[in-house]
Amino acid sequence: MWAMVTTSQGGFEKLQYRRVPLPQIQENEVLIQVSAAGINNTEINTRLGWYSDKVNKGTQQLQEKEEEEDKPDGGWGKPTPFPLIQGTDCCGQVIACGSGKLAHLLGQRILVRPCMASQCQNNYTPWFGSDIDGSFAQFTAVPATEVFPVHSDWSDIELASIPCAYGTAENLLTLAELKKDESILITGASGGVGSAAVQLAKIRGAQIYGLCGHTKMDDLKKLGATPLNRSIPLDQQIKSIQMDTVLDMVGGENFPQLFETIKRGGRYVSSGAIAGPMVSLDLRKLYLKDITMKGGTAWQPGVFENLISYIEEGKIHPLIWKSMPMDKMVEAQKEFLQKKHFGKMVLLPNPL
Amino acid sequence: MWAMVTTSQGGFEKLQYRRVPLPQIQENEVLIQVSAAGINNTEINTRLGWYSDKVNKGTQQLQEKEEEEDKPDGGWGKPTPFPLIQGTDCCGQVIACGSGKLAHLLGQRILVRPCMASQCQNNYTPWFGSDIDGSFAQFTAVPATEVFPVHSDWSDIELASIPCAYGTAENLLTLAELKKDESILITGASGGVGSAAVQLAKIRGAQIYGLCGHTKMDDLKKLGATPLNRSIPLDQQIKSIQMDTVLDMVGGENFPQLFETIKRGGRYVSSGAIAGPMVSLDLRKLYLKDITMKGGTAWQPGVFENLISYIEEGKIHPLIWKSMPMDKMVEAQKEFLQKKHFGKMVLLPNPL
Repeated sequence: MWAMVTTSQGGFEKLQYRRVPLPQIQENEVLIQVSAAGINNTEINTRLGWYSDKVNKGTQQLQEKEEEEDKPDGGWGKPTPFPLIQGTDCCGQVIACGSGKLAHLLGQRILVRPCMASQCQNNYTPWFGSDIDGSFAQFTAVPATEVFPVHSDWSDIELASIPCAYGTAENLLTLAELKKDESILITGASGGVGSAAVQLAKIRGAQIYGLCGHTKMDDLKKLGATPLNRSIPLDQQIKSIQMDTVLDMVGGENFPQLFETIKRGGRYVSSGAIAGPMVSLDLRKLYLKDITMKGGTAWQPGVFENLISYIEEGKIHPLIWKSMPMDKMVEAQKEFLQKKHFGKMVLLPNPL
Repeated sequence: MWAMVTTSQGGFEKLQYRRVPLPQIQENEVLIQVSAAGINNTEINTRLGWYSDKVNKGTQQLQEKEEEEDKPDGGWGKPTPFPLIQGTDCCGQVIACGSGKLAHLLGQRILVRPCMASQCQNNYTPWFGSDIDGSFAQFTAVPATEVFPVHSDWSDIELASIPCAYGTAENLLTLAELKKDESILITGASGGVGSAAVQLAKIRGAQIYGLCGHTKMDDLKKLGATPLNRSIPLDQQIKSIQMDTVLDMVGGENFPQLFETIKRGGRYVSSGAIAGPMVSLDLRKLYLKDITMKGGTAWQPGVFENLISYIEEGKIHPLIWKSMPMDKMVEAQKEFLQKKHFGKMVLLPNPL
């Protein structure tokens, strides 16, 4: 089959579209013909080794910097097993099963749950496309427990925009225990997780504020958030409003002013730091205001099941920027890094 | 009556022992004759205005620095109402009641709950001795709901060592949901909250590691913790041991190496930062390891009731360094700041 193989840590040149053997399925697995695969920032981070302790800058700056230093700790929780087929989002069709017990899945249109709860070992939950081969290929082998049939009139491209971003957002809102009428400030609100969080917070009936670049404020408003301009100091825009929850995927230099907006007893949740991971935290604010901070990578039980039901019940709507053939990955990632898009970019495996 | 009045923000010269009017009690209050009052770091912080955004250093450095700058935001949650009678820990006897309904309290030996849950307004719980007059006086007036009779053979001095430090520690362990056989690393383990946390974690059956200066390691071991030398890099001492919980009252430069020791899914709890409040946080560690951080100032329900029962059931034991007359406050605070003591320092109001 054809696959986009990330050969090792490094620049775009490490992305090689080439023929590889079809994956062999185990007894507990199914073989999926990939129909569409969304792009996420994490794939770029993993290729760059951004998760390494040696890195203290944002994704964009790291991509632009020429460096040859090896970062063995550049993967999520474990060293990335290069060469790796990345790809966290997968919509596809089950075309073979490892055992007769899985026959009910045959022919189903499915989404893969990338945070593979059933594969958790030693308290570590592996991720599809980060710890094992993912969806940037014509086929992929996945444990049947991580395969979720979806009954919806959405296109494959639309479905493929959901798993990583919406799962991460749903998990963070679950961790934050966001309730009806509570206020939430979402950073990077025009991004994948951010725009998902806006929709998922809306389902919960929250008052939503979203930070984004000024060119995306109109789109964000249509999505249901009060748009805030990330280039204007926050306190000038929200005055004395204090947030029950801050959902932050950005981090970086603006972290302190973000933290200031959290009300006494409020929550800060994070699953990314695209502007830079090292932030300055004032422990006094944390404890005098009884704040809870939660990081979320391994998903809470029920998160993915919730997403499937939101799709099937029409509670969320896909936001697609564009789709591209999978062999145009480098082009796609370059456009992704420019951050001019609003909505997901999705790759289509080249025809068999 | 005689009281130690903190006249305004500043150095030791702001502590003035003088005659003030006896407090008038309201219908819901009782008058307490103070028999003993523990010393806590927070009283020094409040006097120095350490809680201000303008401060980014530790308590000791701030005390030693000559500065005249006013810090209106130097109090906990609200501006400190100077002149103030500080004093968070209070053991005493109820000698008058605001109404007949409170007569059952008359003559009882009591501890005051300094985190005054019944007085919570607009989501802010005021503290005895920080937001209203406290125990550094011969008498004090307290809402009856914050007064807890204690039946124990402990001395007044011993009882007065408990409320602030043990309440804070019990609250943090409650927030951390520390369980039997889990591991906990406690910083400042020879300090007031730290040594309390060691005892309270022991009640829960946890594996306890405590960081302290090398001169206090023997005492800490006797208390039930594995002592760790705070001057030696942590990873050299605990190797690959990862903690379920880190309870941190210290903060400062060592925060990053402390955070490294937290296991996936572990907790960090804080209610102080004596070495400095501004810390460098790596958001990747927070989210990739699914860590929860909780700051605790307002106590969880049941915390103070737990302490009273631990005393009455002999589950904790007092650690007294020394007692001194209340008019020797400056001397006492200077000794406190030298951090050569192990156990609480308690002040005794001068005889009537």
